[in-house]
Amino acid sequence: MAKELKELTPRAKDYSQWYLDLVIKADLAENSAVRGCMVIKPYGYAIWEKMQRQLDDMFKETGHENAYFPLFIPKSYLSREADHVEGFAKECAVVTHYRLKNDPAGTGLIVDPEAKLEEELIVRPTSETIIWSTYKNWIQSYRDLPILINQWANVVRWEMRTRLFLRTAEFLWQEGHTAHATKEEAIAEAEQMINVYAEFAEKYMAMPVVKGFKSESERFAGAIDTYTIEALMQDGKALQSGTSHFLGQNFAKAFDVQFTDQSGKRDYVWATSWGVSTRLMGALIMSHSDDNGLVLPPKLAPYQVVIVPIYKNLEQLQQINEKVKGIIERLKALGISVRYDNADNKKPGWKFSEYELKGVPVRLAMGARDLENNTVEVARRDTLTKETLPCDGIEAHIKALLDEMQENIYKKAADFRASQTREVNSYDEFKEEIEKGGFLLCHWDGTAETEARIKEETKATIRCIPLEGDKTPGACIVTGKPSAQRVLFARAY
Amino acid sequence: MAKELKELTPRAKDYSQWYLDLVIKADLAENSAVRGCMVIKPYGYAIWEKMQRQLDDMFKETGHENAYFPLFIPKSYLSREADHVEGFAKECAVVTHYRLKNDPAGTGLIVDPEAKLEEELIVRPTSETIIWSTYKNWIQSYRDLPILINQWANVVRWEMRTRLFLRTAEFLWQEGHTAHATKEEAIAEAEQMINVYAEFAEKYMAMPVVKGFKSESERFAGAIDTYTIEALMQDGKALQSGTSHFLGQNFAKAFDVQFTDQSGKRDYVWATSWGVSTRLMGALIMSHSDDNGLVLPPKLAPYQVVIVPIYKNLEQLQQINEKVKGIIERLKALGISVRYDNADNKKPGWKFSEYELKGVPVRLAMGARDLENNTVEVARRDTLTKETLPCDGIEAHIKALLDEMQENIYKKAADFRASQTREVNSYDEFKEEIEKGGFLLCHWDGTAETEARIKEETKATIRCIPLEGDKTPGACIVTGKPSAQRVLFARAY
Repeated sequence: MAKELKELTPRAKDYSQWYLDLVIKADLAENSAVRGCMVIKPYGYAIWEKMQRQLDDMFKETGHENAYFPLFIPKSYLSREADHVEGFAKECAVVTHYRLKNDPAGTGLIVDPEAKLEEELIVRPTSETIIWSTYKNWIQSYRDLPILINQWANVVRWEMRTRLFLRTAEFLWQEGHTAHATKEEAIAEAEQMINVYAEFAEKYMAMPVVKGFKSESERFAGAIDTYTIEALMQDGKALQSGTSHFLGQNFAKAFDVQFTDQSGKRDYVWATSWGVSTRLMGALIMSHSDDNGLVLPPKLAPYQVVIVPIYKNLEQLQQINEKVKGIIERLKALGISVRYDNADNKKPGWKFSEYELKGVPVRLAMGARDLENNTVEVARRDTLTKETLPCDGIEAHIKALLDEMQENIYKKAADFRASQTREVNSYDEFKEEIEKGGFLLCHWDGTAETEARIKEETKATIRCIPLEGDKTPGACIVTGKPSAQRVLFARAY
Repeated sequence: MAKELKELTPRAKDYSQWYLDLVIKADLAENSAVRGCMVIKPYGYAIWEKMQRQLDDMFKETGHENAYFPLFIPKSYLSREADHVEGFAKECAVVTHYRLKNDPAGTGLIVDPEAKLEEELIVRPTSETIIWSTYKNWIQSYRDLPILINQWANVVRWEMRTRLFLRTAEFLWQEGHTAHATKEEAIAEAEQMINVYAEFAEKYMAMPVVKGFKSESERFAGAIDTYTIEALMQDGKALQSGTSHFLGQNFAKAFDVQFTDQSGKRDYVWATSWGVSTRLMGALIMSHSDDNGLVLPPKLAPYQVVIVPIYKNLEQLQQINEKVKGIIERLKALGISVRYDNADNKKPGWKFSEYELKGVPVRLAMGARDLENNTVEVARRDTLTKETLPCDGIEAHIKALLDEMQENIYKKAADFRASQTREVNSYDEFKEEIEKGGFLLCHWDGTAETEARIKEETKATIRCIPLEGDKTPGACIVTGKPSAQRVLFARAY
């Protein structure tokens, strides 16, 4: 693939452009010929696969199984749940026909008017409706519950303004859909899954998140309560990174899914749904990366170590090859993924900047002097520092270094967030502070009117009503009315 | 989920009904509310995941990377390759609009006529066109080649008569799409991948296959050559189980993808594509299962061992629980997946037939006498035999048993195929033999006319021109014209 200039627009100059440059130049993704749909390139997909594998393990550890439901949803299903249809009918891909034919007038392929569907099909924007229409046949009694299912799938929402990974017409995600005999069990499930997401974000993505409830106006269409994790990007904007919904009996009622409980009584089934998507790729990129390129937490890096030989002639290269072979074996034995780039058609300097751009956590370089001294140069991507170390025992050093980097990347993001999170106590202060970006914690009277006014006047939204932290009541910064606790405001992606 | 009667229609009575009964009753899949689209249930999906994981490893071992391309294909792209459009335009889902709205007349949701797409989008039936339109931007010189990419995706082909797993409107698959600098390299890639598929079928699915070329009329729309693997089902019908296509320069020409070679000359890029799908689930089921239910090769079983306690009271159950705990630990230490079903609301007899139906390879049962004697009853699913063995060392016995079963299941299928494969030397003999099912090896003159006549008169098709085996020339059974080698005929799914 053609390598253009690898320089990125600096973040300070234009954060949006920096992001786009990075996604393209690090070979993560690109726009496709289909409006709003992206191509996820192998390097980007490899990061997504790492995320998938880890999340999938966490879902299975919490008792979930995978399954697969249809891509298409009959139009009438969308209308069954009143809030749901309001949320999703406005931005969907509609299949109306099932055949093309050659135009008799010779203009090429046309839609065959005789192949019109009786009922249009919607490409799923989310699968509650098709799944609950299926669960109806699976559930008769409490013995059939709980149902704990996840699916990995593509979904389509016809977004008008798209941005790679962050907002695309088609995206990849997982959606969990569970069915329970009691309200308490469903709420516990929704909470459990937001905790799983938070653990994944913090331990694997090295991205600190605030867990909380969405306000009513920001809830999922059809939910009683939406739990969210909110992360802070380097430009001071928030990014919603995962949501888990307590759906109450809304979808069970819409699709008439009842069960007989242990005492013989009939009741509607309780539901949750929860999802994260390829949007997490955007969150990952914007949490840690710098003007030189990607910074990847070692746990999600497609390869954690790259080794580059520096040589003057073929004989030296062969000696380095030999030396490196042992190092690779020892690294792999410790479960560390390694790539050895001894391609002869690229200079070491080109390779250095390429792997810096791609965020490979550790770079080892070995030259003639290293051969003599039995040393290797170790460069870490997060701090851009390097040191020369003995080859003996290098594998243990790197293993510890990767752990240290994982923690350091998290800590850096957490420190940044701490520095950008402020309590504000008046609306004037709010208006001033919101211009600086970051998370603002303030009192709100709990009404949609006040929320809408703040959004209208400042472009800030309630990211969440935090689950943890200070729960002291107070007075709304706008109306002075009582507030149960401070809520988290920010401008958001 | 409600358990209905688990009896299956016997294969001898109605093979089609047996298959459908089994897919439904073993909880593998079911039809959805959307015509032709299936729901893959957790147990069926778990088998598919095992297949995916293994195939994915094999693709990566042969140098391929995963990526993701859009679900939608602009209508005009389909027309770029003349054969391709003929093959796929007739059975596709067409997206014409991107919004629904409330009918002003109050009839509910309608398609918003103002949200009509300028160019219709096709839900991908296969992705050559969208991928080659992307590769155009990735390839300038020989240094950008080869591109070795695979994607795991859903595709849609509007089939009129559908059958769970075997033929559905939407199905899951993987599609490899590679780009090469030379014809030879592309052919070698197409061959390599049919070999990977054959190895997977034989070693993991325990399903013997014949590798060969498709005749021209059975080729993939747009291919120069299609390699196939063909398996024989228990009812004597063939099932095409995977294909790998040498596409020549057809798609490179259609999308104008040229590269500069080492000598500075410009030429079109050479291509392959290759895929297997959830159809393999049908092949797996029909290769090995019996009137009692699924028979799964141990390498693809979601769990390889199930343990069922047989007890008269809670005290006995606790003793068995204790004993089984050690066995489970020792089995897991050997990498064997185990499920312990000590649920109290189902009788052992019910559990036995349930796990038989689901094809769990090994069932262990432990009762009061076993406790006394430190023994366990070991039942194998493939032969339906059982024996009582000492608990000590049971894990090593089971490990060896699973290997033996994997081989035995393969051998049984291979023996069956051998018994059903005959050479025939006249058209009369052909017509008589084809009624008995199985593979017929006979001479054919290589023309589409003769092939079409045989299909018309006998419903048999050329499954492949085998790569291996007898290559003696002869005379066509229909026309007497020269034939280079015997080809494989059968009636097929």
